[in-house]
Amino acid sequence: MNRQELVHTIREKQSYLCIGLDTDLHRIPRHLHAHADPVFAFNKAIIDATKDLCVSYKINTAFYECMGIRGWETLQRTIEYIPEGIFTIADAKRGDIGNTATQYAKTFFDTFQFDSVTVAPYMGKDSVTPFLEFSGKWAILLGLTSNEGSGDFQLQRMEGGEYLYEKVLRAGTSWGSADNLMFVVGATQTEQMARIRALVPDHFFLVPGVGAQGGDLAQISQLGMNKDCGLLVNVSRGIIYAGNGEDFATDARQAAQQYQTAMADLLARTTQTVGV
Amino acid sequence: MNRQELVHTIREKQSYLCIGLDTDLHRIPRHLHAHADPVFAFNKAIIDATKDLCVSYKINTAFYECMGIRGWETLQRTIEYIPEGIFTIADAKRGDIGNTATQYAKTFFDTFQFDSVTVAPYMGKDSVTPFLEFSGKWAILLGLTSNEGSGDFQLQRMEGGEYLYEKVLRAGTSWGSADNLMFVVGATQTEQMARIRALVPDHFFLVPGVGAQGGDLAQISQLGMNKDCGLLVNVSRGIIYAGNGEDFATDARQAAQQYQTAMADLLARTTQTVGV
Repeated sequence: MNRQELVHTIREKQSYLCIGLDTDLHRIPRHLHAHADPVFAFNKAIIDATKDLCVSYKINTAFYECMGIRGWETLQRTIEYIPEGIFTIADAKRGDIGNTATQYAKTFFDTFQFDSVTVAPYMGKDSVTPFLEFSGKWAILLGLTSNEGSGDFQLQRMEGGEYLYEKVLRAGTSWGSADNLMFVVGATQTEQMARIRALVPDHFFLVPGVGAQGGDLAQISQLGMNKDCGLLVNVSRGIIYAGNGEDFATDARQAAQQYQTAMADLLARTTQTVGV
Repeated sequence: MNRQELVHTIREKQSYLCIGLDTDLHRIPRHLHAHADPVFAFNKAIIDATKDLCVSYKINTAFYECMGIRGWETLQRTIEYIPEGIFTIADAKRGDIGNTATQYAKTFFDTFQFDSVTVAPYMGKDSVTPFLEFSGKWAILLGLTSNEGSGDFQLQRMEGGEYLYEKVLRAGTSWGSADNLMFVVGATQTEQMARIRALVPDHFFLVPGVGAQGGDLAQISQLGMNKDCGLLVNVSRGIIYAGNGEDFATDARQAAQQYQTAMADLLARTTQTVGV
Protein backbone atom coordinates (compact mmCIF):
# COMPACT_ATOMS: atom_id res chain seq x y z
CA MET A 1 0.00 0.00 0.00
CA ASN A 2 1.47 3.36 -0.99
CA ARG A 3 1.21 6.64 0.88
CA GLN A 4 -1.60 8.04 -1.25
CA GLU A 5 -3.73 4.95 -0.65
CA LEU A 6 -3.02 5.07 3.07
CA VAL A 7 -4.00 8.74 3.33
CA HIS A 8 -7.14 8.04 1.28
CA THR A 9 -8.11 5.16 3.60
CA ILE A 10 -7.62 7.32 6.70
CA ARG A 11 -9.85 10.01 5.21
CA GLU A 12 -12.52 7.53 4.13
CA LYS A 13 -12.70 5.59 7.40
CA GLN A 14 -12.15 8.70 9.53
CA SER A 15 -9.69 6.61 11.48
CA TYR A 16 -5.96 6.28 11.99
CA LEU A 17 -6.36 3.31 14.29
CA CYS A 18 -3.93 0.41 14.11
CA ILE A 19 -4.98 -2.67 16.05
CA GLY A 20 -2.16 -4.72 17.49
CA LEU A 21 -2.67 -8.46 17.23
CA ASP A 22 -0.34 -9.29 20.13
CA THR A 23 -2.35 -12.42 20.71
CA ASP A 24 -1.25 -14.51 23.65
CA LEU A 25 -2.63 -18.06 23.77
CA HIS A 26 -2.89 -17.76 27.55
CA ARG A 27 -5.03 -14.63 27.44
CA ILE A 28 -7.72 -15.54 24.92
CA PRO A 29 -11.22 -16.68 26.01
CA ARG A 30 -11.30 -20.25 27.17
CA HIS A 31 -13.96 -21.46 24.71
CA LEU A 32 -11.59 -20.78 21.79
CA HIS A 33 -9.23 -23.50 22.94
CA ALA A 34 -11.56 -26.04 21.32
CA HIS A 35 -10.44 -24.72 17.90
CA ALA A 36 -7.59 -26.39 16.02
CA ASP A 37 -5.82 -23.00 15.89
CA PRO A 38 -7.17 -20.99 18.84
CA VAL A 39 -5.03 -17.90 18.19
CA PHE A 40 -6.19 -17.71 14.58
CA ALA A 41 -9.82 -18.22 15.67
CA PHE A 42 -9.34 -15.27 18.03
CA ASN A 43 -7.65 -13.07 15.40
CA LYS A 44 -10.31 -13.90 12.80
CA ALA A 45 -13.09 -12.85 15.17
CA ILE A 46 -11.23 -9.63 16.08
CA ILE A 47 -10.61 -8.80 12.41
CA ASP A 48 -14.24 -9.50 11.45
CA ALA A 49 -15.42 -7.25 14.27
CA THR A 50 -13.06 -4.31 13.71
CA LYS A 51 -11.97 -4.17 10.07
CA ASP A 52 -14.24 -1.22 9.21
CA LEU A 53 -12.94 0.82 12.16
CA CYS A 54 -9.19 0.57 11.72
CA VAL A 55 -6.81 1.29 8.86
CA SER A 56 -4.05 -1.06 9.96
CA TYR A 57 -3.29 -4.29 11.80
CA LYS A 58 0.06 -4.76 13.48
CA ILE A 59 1.23 -8.28 14.15
CA ASN A 60 3.76 -8.55 16.95
CA THR A 61 5.78 -11.47 15.63
CA ALA A 62 7.17 -12.44 19.08
CA PHE A 63 3.76 -13.75 20.14
CA TYR A 64 3.76 -16.10 17.14
CA GLU A 65 7.43 -17.06 17.10
CA CYS A 66 7.25 -18.29 20.68
CA MET A 67 4.85 -21.04 19.56
CA GLY A 68 7.44 -22.36 17.11
CA ILE A 69 6.37 -23.64 13.72
CA ARG A 70 2.68 -23.69 14.68
CA GLY A 71 2.99 -20.03 15.53
CA TRP A 72 4.28 -19.17 12.07
CA GLU A 73 1.37 -21.10 10.57
CA THR A 74 -0.98 -18.98 12.68
CA LEU A 75 0.83 -15.83 11.57
CA GLN A 76 0.47 -16.84 7.93
CA ARG A 77 -3.27 -17.59 8.31
CA THR A 78 -3.73 -14.24 10.03
CA ILE A 79 -1.92 -12.12 7.46
CA GLU A 80 -3.78 -13.90 4.66
CA TYR A 81 -7.10 -13.22 6.39
CA ILE A 82 -6.59 -9.45 6.69
CA PRO A 83 -8.67 -7.83 3.92
CA GLU A 84 -7.16 -5.88 1.04
CA GLY A 85 -6.97 -2.17 1.67
CA ILE A 86 -5.77 -2.45 5.26
CA PHE A 87 -2.15 -1.54 5.97
CA THR A 88 -0.28 -4.46 7.53
CA ILE A 89 2.69 -4.13 9.87
CA ALA A 90 5.08 -6.90 10.91
CA ASP A 91 6.23 -5.62 14.28
CA ALA A 92 9.43 -7.63 14.22
CA LYS A 93 12.05 -4.96 15.03
CA ARG A 94 14.65 -6.60 12.85
CA GLY A 95 18.11 -5.13 12.37
CA ASP A 96 21.18 -6.75 10.83
CA ILE A 97 23.80 -6.04 8.16
CA GLY A 98 23.09 -5.77 4.45
CA ASN A 99 22.99 -9.36 3.30
CA THR A 100 20.99 -10.48 6.32
CA ALA A 101 18.70 -7.44 6.26
CA THR A 102 17.78 -8.37 2.70
CA GLN A 103 16.77 -11.84 3.92
CA TYR A 104 14.56 -10.26 6.59
CA ALA A 105 13.01 -7.91 4.05
CA LYS A 106 12.22 -10.88 1.80
CA THR A 107 10.72 -12.71 4.78
CA PHE A 108 8.18 -10.03 5.58
CA PHE A 109 7.60 -8.44 2.16
CA ASP A 110 7.72 -11.47 -0.14
CA THR A 111 7.11 -14.60 1.92
CA PHE A 112 4.44 -13.14 4.22
CA GLN A 113 3.33 -10.17 2.08
CA PHE A 114 3.27 -7.52 4.79
CA ASP A 115 3.17 -3.85 3.74
CA SER A 116 5.76 -2.88 6.32
CA VAL A 117 8.16 -4.08 8.99
CA THR A 118 9.57 -2.37 12.07
CA VAL A 119 13.37 -2.01 12.00
CA ALA A 120 15.93 -1.25 14.73
CA PRO A 121 18.52 1.46 13.94
CA TYR A 122 21.53 0.51 16.09
CA MET A 123 23.55 -1.07 13.27
CA GLY A 124 23.17 1.97 11.00
CA LYS A 125 22.48 2.69 7.37
CA ASP A 126 23.37 -0.66 5.79
CA SER A 127 20.96 -2.40 8.18
CA VAL A 128 18.04 -0.18 7.15
CA THR A 129 18.34 0.61 3.44
CA PRO A 130 17.77 -2.99 2.26
CA PHE A 131 14.19 -2.62 3.56
CA LEU A 132 13.69 0.49 1.42
CA GLU A 133 14.32 -1.22 -1.88
CA PHE A 134 10.97 -2.99 -2.19
CA SER A 135 8.41 -1.11 -4.27
CA GLY A 136 5.24 -0.25 -2.34
CA LYS A 137 6.73 -1.51 0.95
CA TRP A 138 7.77 0.38 4.06
CA ALA A 139 10.37 0.27 6.80
CA ILE A 140 9.22 1.64 10.15
CA LEU A 141 12.35 2.69 12.01
CA LEU A 142 12.45 2.86 15.81
CA GLY A 143 12.77 6.52 16.76
CA LEU A 144 11.67 7.20 20.32
CA THR A 145 9.91 4.24 21.90
CA SER A 146 7.25 4.26 24.62
CA ASN A 147 9.01 2.13 27.24
CA GLU A 148 10.99 3.12 30.29
CA GLY A 149 14.22 1.91 28.68
CA SER A 150 13.92 4.67 26.06
CA GLY A 151 15.76 6.77 28.64
CA ASP A 152 18.82 4.53 28.59
CA PHE A 153 20.10 5.45 25.14
CA GLN A 154 17.46 7.16 22.97
CA LEU A 155 17.07 10.07 25.37
CA GLN A 156 20.77 10.43 26.06
CA ARG A 157 22.47 13.46 24.60
CA MET A 158 25.11 13.29 21.92
CA GLU A 159 28.10 15.54 21.56
CA GLY A 160 26.60 18.77 20.24
CA GLY A 161 23.50 18.47 22.39
CA GLU A 162 20.95 16.53 20.36
CA TYR A 163 19.39 13.33 21.66
CA LEU A 164 20.39 10.01 20.11
CA TYR A 165 16.82 9.53 18.87
CA GLU A 166 17.04 12.87 17.02
CA LYS A 167 20.22 11.70 15.32
CA VAL A 168 18.36 8.53 14.31
CA LEU A 169 15.42 10.52 12.92
CA ARG A 170 17.72 12.80 10.94
CA ALA A 171 19.71 9.89 9.56
CA GLY A 172 16.50 8.03 8.69
CA THR A 173 15.10 10.93 6.69
CA SER A 174 18.33 10.98 4.67
CA TRP A 175 18.05 7.23 3.89
CA GLY A 176 14.36 6.97 3.04
CA SER A 177 11.53 9.22 1.99
CA ALA A 178 8.07 9.89 3.39
CA ASP A 179 6.89 7.33 0.81
CA ASN A 180 8.84 4.33 2.12
CA LEU A 181 9.90 5.15 5.68
CA MET A 182 7.93 5.75 8.88
CA PHE A 183 9.17 6.14 12.45
CA VAL A 184 8.05 4.60 15.71
CA VAL A 185 7.29 7.35 18.23
CA GLY A 186 5.78 6.27 21.54
CA ALA A 187 2.55 7.87 22.73
CA THR A 188 4.06 8.30 26.19
CA GLN A 189 6.61 10.76 24.77
CA THR A 190 4.37 13.83 24.81
CA GLU A 191 7.18 16.11 25.93
CA GLN A 192 9.13 15.28 22.79
CA MET A 193 6.33 14.94 20.22
CA ALA A 194 6.17 18.58 19.06
CA ARG A 195 9.94 18.65 18.66
CA ILE A 196 9.84 15.39 16.71
CA ARG A 197 7.11 16.60 14.36
CA ALA A 198 9.08 19.80 13.73
CA LEU A 199 12.17 17.72 12.90
CA VAL A 200 10.24 15.27 10.68
CA PRO A 201 7.30 17.16 9.19
CA ASP A 202 6.22 14.77 6.45
CA HIS A 203 6.76 11.16 7.54
CA PHE A 204 4.13 8.94 9.09
CA PHE A 205 4.64 7.90 12.72
CA LEU A 206 3.55 4.58 14.14
CA VAL A 207 2.50 5.48 17.68
CA PRO A 208 2.28 2.66 20.22
CA GLY A 209 1.62 3.18 23.92
CA VAL A 210 -1.96 4.48 23.97
CA GLY A 211 -4.12 2.55 26.45
CA ALA A 212 -2.34 -0.03 28.60
CA GLN A 213 0.92 1.96 28.55
CA GLY A 214 -0.78 5.22 29.52
CA GLY A 215 -0.42 7.40 26.40
CA ASP A 216 -3.15 9.97 25.78
CA LEU A 217 -4.76 9.83 22.32
CA ALA A 218 -5.95 13.43 22.10
CA GLN A 219 -2.74 14.93 23.36
CA ILE A 220 -0.44 12.89 21.17
CA SER A 221 -2.67 13.43 18.10
CA GLN A 222 -2.76 17.18 18.49
CA LEU A 223 1.00 17.30 18.83
CA GLY A 224 1.82 14.76 16.16
CA MET A 225 -0.64 15.18 13.30
CA ASN A 226 0.47 16.66 9.99
CA LYS A 227 -1.46 17.64 6.87
CA ASP A 228 -1.91 14.02 5.79
CA CYS A 229 -2.75 12.94 9.35
CA GLY A 230 0.70 11.33 9.51
CA LEU A 231 -0.16 9.05 12.40
CA LEU A 232 -1.04 5.40 12.87
CA VAL A 233 -1.97 5.05 16.53
CA ASN A 234 -1.70 1.50 17.74
CA VAL A 235 -3.81 -0.05 20.46
CA SER A 236 -3.30 -3.70 21.30
CA ARG A 237 -4.48 -4.98 24.70
CA GLY A 238 -7.02 -2.16 25.17
CA ILE A 239 -8.96 -3.50 22.18
CA ILE A 240 -8.27 -7.19 21.73
CA TYR A 241 -8.66 -7.99 25.44
CA ALA A 242 -11.55 -5.55 26.05
CA GLY A 243 -13.67 -8.58 26.92
CA ASN A 244 -12.88 -12.12 27.89
CA GLY A 245 -16.16 -13.97 27.41
CA GLU A 246 -18.04 -15.54 24.51
CA ASP A 247 -18.76 -12.05 23.16
CA PHE A 248 -15.15 -10.84 23.30
CA ALA A 249 -15.32 -9.70 19.67
CA THR A 250 -18.29 -7.44 20.41
CA ASP A 251 -16.39 -5.95 23.32
CA ALA A 252 -13.35 -5.43 21.07
CA ARG A 253 -15.55 -3.70 18.50
CA GLN A 254 -16.95 -1.37 21.14
CA ALA A 255 -13.46 -0.43 22.28
CA ALA A 256 -12.31 0.09 18.68
CA GLN A 257 -15.44 2.14 17.98
CA GLN A 258 -14.61 4.48 20.85
CA TYR A 259 -11.14 5.06 19.43
CA GLN A 260 -12.50 5.59 15.91
CA THR A 261 -15.07 8.11 17.13
CA ALA A 262 -12.41 10.02 19.04
CA MET A 263 -10.14 9.93 15.99
CA ALA A 264 -12.86 11.22 13.65
CA ASP A 265 -13.29 14.14 16.04
CA LEU A 266 -9.55 14.78 16.25
CA LEU A 267 -9.24 14.60 12.46
CA ALA A 268 -12.10 17.10 12.08
CA ARG A 269 -10.55 19.47 14.59
CA THR A 270 -7.15 19.25 13.00
CA THR A 271 -8.64 19.55 9.50
CA GLN A 272 -9.47 23.14 10.32
CA THR A 273 -5.79 23.76 11.01
CA VAL A 274 -3.97 21.60 8.48
CA GLY A 275 -6.62 20.60 5.93
CA VAL A 276 -6.87 16.79 5.96
CA MET B 1 25.79 -24.25 28.78
CA ASN B 2 27.32 -22.24 31.61
CA ARG B 3 30.53 -20.23 31.54
CA GLN B 4 32.62 -22.89 33.25
CA GLU B 5 31.56 -25.50 30.69
CA LEU B 6 32.26 -23.11 27.82
CA VAL B 7 35.75 -22.28 29.09
CA HIS B 8 36.42 -26.00 29.62
CA THR B 9 35.32 -26.81 26.07
CA ILE B 10 37.56 -24.10 24.64
CA ARG B 11 40.52 -25.47 26.57
CA GLU B 12 39.78 -29.06 25.58
CA LYS B 13 39.26 -28.43 21.89
CA GLN B 14 41.96 -25.74 21.72
CA SER B 15 39.48 -23.70 19.74
CA TYR B 16 37.24 -20.69 20.17
CA LEU B 17 35.76 -21.07 16.71
CA CYS B 18 32.08 -20.42 16.13
CA ILE B 19 30.78 -21.54 12.74
CA GLY B 20 27.97 -19.47 11.30
CA LEU B 21 25.27 -21.48 9.60
CA ASP B 22 24.09 -18.59 7.41
CA THR B 23 22.91 -21.13 4.91
CA ASP B 24 21.44 -19.71 1.74
CA LEU B 25 19.46 -22.13 -0.42
CA HIS B 26 20.84 -20.41 -3.51
CA ARG B 27 24.48 -20.89 -2.51
CA ILE B 28 24.60 -24.57 -1.57
CA PRO B 29 25.96 -27.23 -3.95
CA ARG B 30 23.51 -28.17 -6.65
CA HIS B 31 23.41 -31.90 -5.90
CA LEU B 32 21.83 -31.18 -2.49
CA HIS B 33 18.69 -29.86 -4.11
CA ALA B 34 17.56 -33.47 -4.59
CA HIS B 35 17.05 -33.69 -0.79
CA ALA B 36 13.65 -33.02 0.74
CA ASP B 37 15.29 -30.37 2.94
CA PRO B 38 18.42 -29.22 1.08
CA VAL B 39 19.46 -26.62 3.67
CA PHE B 40 19.30 -29.17 6.46
CA ALA B 41 21.23 -31.70 4.35
CA PHE B 42 23.90 -29.02 3.91
CA ASN B 43 23.95 -28.08 7.60
CA LYS B 44 24.11 -31.73 8.67
CA ALA B 45 27.13 -32.37 6.46
CA ILE B 46 28.84 -29.20 7.73
CA ILE B 47 28.17 -30.12 11.36
CA ASP B 48 29.40 -33.70 10.86
CA ALA B 49 32.59 -32.40 9.26
CA THR B 50 33.40 -29.64 11.75
CA LYS B 51 31.92 -30.47 15.16
CA ASP B 52 35.27 -31.48 16.69
CA LEU B 53 36.94 -28.25 15.54
CA CYS B 54 34.51 -25.62 16.79
CA VAL B 55 32.99 -24.83 20.17
CA SER B 56 29.89 -23.08 18.86
CA TYR B 57 27.42 -22.89 15.98
CA LYS B 58 25.62 -19.65 15.24
CA ILE B 59 22.38 -19.82 13.31
CA ASN B 60 21.51 -16.60 11.53
CA THR B 61 17.73 -16.82 11.77
CA ALA B 62 17.11 -14.49 8.81
CA PHE B 63 18.28 -17.15 6.37
CA TYR B 64 15.64 -19.54 7.74
CA GLU B 65 12.82 -17.07 8.32
CA CYS B 66 12.91 -15.99 4.67
CA MET B 67 11.81 -19.50 3.67
CA GLY B 68 8.67 -19.15 5.79
CA ILE B 69 7.33 -22.12 7.73
CA ARG B 70 9.63 -24.54 5.90
CA GLY B 71 12.58 -22.47 7.02
CA TRP B 72 11.60 -22.76 10.68
CA GLU B 73 11.32 -26.53 10.23
CA THR B 74 14.85 -26.52 8.86
CA LEU B 75 16.03 -24.37 11.77
CA GLN B 76 14.45 -26.80 14.24
CA ARG B 77 16.06 -29.82 12.56
CA THR B 78 19.41 -28.05 12.58
CA ILE B 79 19.37 -27.00 16.24
CA GLU B 80 18.28 -30.52 17.24
CA TYR B 81 21.13 -32.01 15.22
CA ILE B 82 23.88 -29.97 16.90
CA PRO B 83 25.58 -32.28 19.44
CA GLU B 84 25.48 -31.70 23.19
CA GLY B 85 28.46 -29.77 24.48
CA ILE B 86 28.51 -27.23 21.67
CA PHE B 87 27.38 -23.69 22.47
CA THR B 88 24.45 -22.63 20.27
CA ILE B 89 23.67 -19.07 19.27
CA ALA B 90 20.44 -17.81 17.72
CA ASP B 91 21.69 -14.79 15.81
CA ALA B 92 18.31 -13.11 15.77
CA LYS B 93 19.13 -9.59 17.05
CA ARG B 94 15.80 -9.25 18.78
CA GLY B 95 14.89 -6.19 20.83
CA ASP B 96 11.49 -5.19 22.16
CA ILE B 97 9.85 -4.12 25.42
CA GLY B 98 9.48 -6.35 28.49
CA ASN B 99 6.40 -8.39 27.70
CA THR B 100 7.46 -8.98 24.09
CA ALA B 101 11.11 -9.58 24.98
CA THR B 102 9.95 -12.38 27.27
CA GLN B 103 8.12 -13.97 24.33
CA TYR B 104 11.31 -13.80 22.26
CA ALA B 105 13.36 -15.29 25.10
CA LYS B 106 10.85 -18.17 25.35
CA THR B 107 11.08 -18.65 21.58
CA PHE B 108 14.81 -19.19 21.51
CA PHE B 109 15.48 -20.64 24.98
CA ASP B 110 12.42 -22.86 25.50
CA THR B 111 10.87 -23.59 22.12
CA PHE B 112 14.12 -23.99 20.17
CA GLN B 113 16.51 -24.72 23.07
CA PHE B 114 19.34 -22.40 22.05
CA ASP B 115 21.98 -21.52 24.66
CA SER B 116 21.98 -17.86 23.66
CA VAL B 117 20.41 -15.20 21.50
CA THR B 118 21.77 -11.94 20.10
CA VAL B 119 19.90 -8.85 21.34
CA ALA B 120 19.78 -5.23 20.12
CA PRO B 121 20.25 -2.50 22.74
CA TYR B 122 18.38 0.51 21.30
CA MET B 123 15.25 0.10 23.46
CA GLY B 124 17.22 -0.06 26.72
CA LYS B 125 17.21 -2.07 29.90
CA ASP B 126 13.67 -3.46 29.88
CA SER B 127 14.29 -4.89 26.39
CA VAL B 128 17.41 -6.78 27.54
CA THR B 129 16.86 -8.00 31.10
CA PRO B 130 14.04 -10.45 30.21
CA PHE B 131 16.69 -12.48 28.34
CA LEU B 132 18.85 -12.64 31.48
CA GLU B 133 16.27 -14.43 33.61
CA PHE B 134 16.69 -17.90 32.12
CA SER B 135 19.04 -20.15 34.07
CA GLY B 136 22.01 -21.37 32.03
CA LYS B 137 21.05 -19.13 29.07
CA TRP B 138 22.79 -16.07 27.63
CA ALA B 139 21.98 -12.78 25.99
CA ILE B 140 24.59 -11.52 23.53
CA LEU B 141 24.16 -7.76 23.31
CA LEU B 142 25.24 -5.80 20.24
CA GLY B 143 28.17 -3.64 21.28
CA LEU B 144 30.28 -2.53 18.33
CA THR B 145 29.37 -4.32 15.12
CA SER B 146 31.60 -5.10 12.16
CA ASN B 147 29.66 -3.33 9.42
CA GLU B 148 30.13 0.08 7.84
CA GLY B 149 26.95 1.34 9.49
CA SER B 150 28.58 0.96 12.91
CA GLY B 151 29.88 4.47 12.26
CA ASP B 152 26.39 5.95 12.04
CA PHE B 153 25.45 5.68 15.72
CA GLN B 154 27.71 3.26 17.64
CA LEU B 155 30.85 5.26 16.90
CA GLN B 156 29.24 8.62 17.49
CA ARG B 157 30.27 10.48 20.63
CA MET B 158 27.91 11.18 23.49
CA GLU B 159 27.91 14.26 25.67
CA GLY B 160 30.93 13.73 27.92
CA GLY B 161 33.02 12.21 25.13
CA GLU B 162 32.38 8.47 25.23
CA TYR B 163 31.09 6.60 22.19
CA LEU B 164 27.52 5.33 22.17
CA TYR B 165 28.83 1.75 22.04
CA GLU B 166 30.82 2.37 25.24
CA LYS B 167 27.67 3.58 26.96
CA VAL B 168 25.95 0.37 25.78
CA LEU B 169 28.79 -1.80 27.12
CA ARG B 170 28.76 -0.03 30.47
CA ALA B 171 24.99 -0.30 30.77
CA GLY B 172 25.10 -3.97 29.76
CA THR B 173 27.62 -4.86 32.44
CA SER B 174 25.31 -3.29 35.03
CA TRP B 175 22.34 -5.37 33.79
CA GLY B 176 23.96 -8.78 33.40
CA SER B 177 27.05 -10.60 34.60
CA ALA B 178 29.90 -12.37 32.82
CA ASP B 179 27.86 -15.55 33.44
CA ASN B 180 24.77 -14.59 31.43
CA LEU B 181 25.77 -11.74 29.14
CA MET B 182 28.18 -11.50 26.22
CA PHE B 183 28.75 -8.68 23.73
CA VAL B 184 29.06 -8.59 19.97
CA VAL B 185 32.32 -6.89 18.98
CA GLY B 186 33.19 -6.93 15.30
CA ALA B 187 36.59 -8.24 14.20
CA THR B 188 36.99 -5.24 11.92
CA GLN B 189 37.10 -2.93 14.97
CA THR B 190 40.78 -3.46 15.80
CA GLU B 191 41.27 0.20 16.70
CA GLN B 192 38.69 -0.11 19.45
CA MET B 193 39.32 -3.65 20.70
CA ALA B 194 41.95 -2.90 23.37
CA ARG B 195 39.81 -0.09 24.74
CA ILE B 196 36.77 -2.42 24.78
CA ARG B 197 38.63 -5.18 26.62
CA ALA B 198 39.83 -2.68 29.19
CA LEU B 199 36.26 -1.49 29.72
CA VAL B 200 34.83 -5.02 29.88
CA PRO B 201 37.57 -7.30 31.25
CA ASP B 202 35.56 -10.42 32.10
CA HIS B 203 32.73 -10.91 29.61
CA PHE B 204 32.89 -13.10 26.54
CA PHE B 205 32.76 -11.39 23.16
CA LEU B 206 31.14 -12.88 20.08
CA VAL B 207 33.38 -11.66 17.28
CA PRO B 208 31.98 -11.72 13.74
CA GLY B 209 33.75 -10.28 10.73
CA VAL B 210 36.79 -12.54 10.34
CA GLY B 211 37.14 -13.81 6.78
CA ALA B 212 34.69 -12.43 4.22
CA GLN B 213 34.40 -9.09 6.08
CA GLY B 214 38.16 -8.66 6.39
CA GLY B 215 38.86 -8.99 10.13
CA ASP B 216 42.26 -10.42 11.13
CA LEU B 217 42.11 -13.39 13.53
CA ALA B 218 45.55 -13.00 15.13
CA GLN B 219 45.26 -9.28 15.64
CA ILE B 220 41.77 -9.34 17.12
CA SER B 221 42.63 -12.33 19.33
CA GLN B 222 45.72 -10.72 20.78
CA LEU B 223 43.80 -7.55 21.55
CA GLY B 224 40.63 -9.20 22.81
CA MET B 225 41.58 -12.33 24.72
CA ASN B 226 41.22 -12.46 28.49
CA LYS B 227 42.27 -15.07 31.07
CA ASP B 228 39.36 -17.38 30.12
CA CYS B 229 39.95 -16.78 26.39
CA GLY B 230 36.79 -14.65 26.43
CA LEU B 231 36.27 -14.84 22.68
CA LEU B 232 34.03 -16.74 20.32
CA VAL B 233 35.25 -15.88 16.84
CA ASN B 234 32.63 -16.49 14.20
CA VAL B 235 33.36 -17.46 10.62
CA SER B 236 30.44 -18.12 8.31
CA ARG B 237 31.01 -17.93 4.57
CA GLY B 238 34.75 -18.56 4.83
CA ILE B 239 34.02 -22.05 6.14
CA ILE B 240 30.60 -23.19 4.95
CA TYR B 241 31.20 -22.05 1.37
CA ALA B 242 34.88 -23.05 1.24
CA GLY B 243 33.95 -25.50 -1.50
CA ASN B 244 30.99 -25.81 -3.80
CA GLY B 245 31.25 -29.34 -5.16
CA GLU B 246 30.29 -32.82 -3.98
CA ASP B 247 33.06 -32.65 -1.38
CA PHE B 248 32.02 -29.27 0.06
CA ALA B 249 32.04 -30.70 3.61
CA THR B 250 35.69 -31.77 3.26
CA ASP B 251 36.56 -28.29 2.05
CA ALA B 252 34.66 -26.80 5.00
CA ARG B 253 36.56 -29.06 7.37
CA GLN B 254 39.88 -27.95 5.91
CA ALA B 255 38.95 -24.31 6.33
CA ALA B 256 37.76 -24.92 9.91
CA GLN B 257 40.94 -26.89 10.63
CA GLN B 258 43.06 -23.93 9.57
CA TYR B 259 41.20 -21.66 11.96
CA GLN B 260 41.42 -24.20 14.79
CA THR B 261 45.17 -24.62 14.29
CA ALA B 262 45.68 -20.87 14.32
CA MET B 263 43.52 -20.59 17.44
CA ALA B 264 45.45 -23.32 19.29
CA ASP B 265 48.60 -21.35 18.56
CA LEU B 266 47.07 -18.07 19.70
CA LEU B 267 45.74 -19.71 22.87
CA ALA B 268 49.19 -21.13 23.63
CA ARG B 269 50.87 -17.79 23.05
CA THR B 270 48.35 -15.96 25.19
CA THR B 271 48.50 -18.66 27.87
CA GLN B 272 51.99 -17.50 28.64
CA THR B 273 50.60 -14.05 29.35
CA VAL B 274 47.25 -14.67 30.95
CA GLY B 275 47.28 -18.35 31.91
CA VAL B 276 44.43 -20.02 29.97
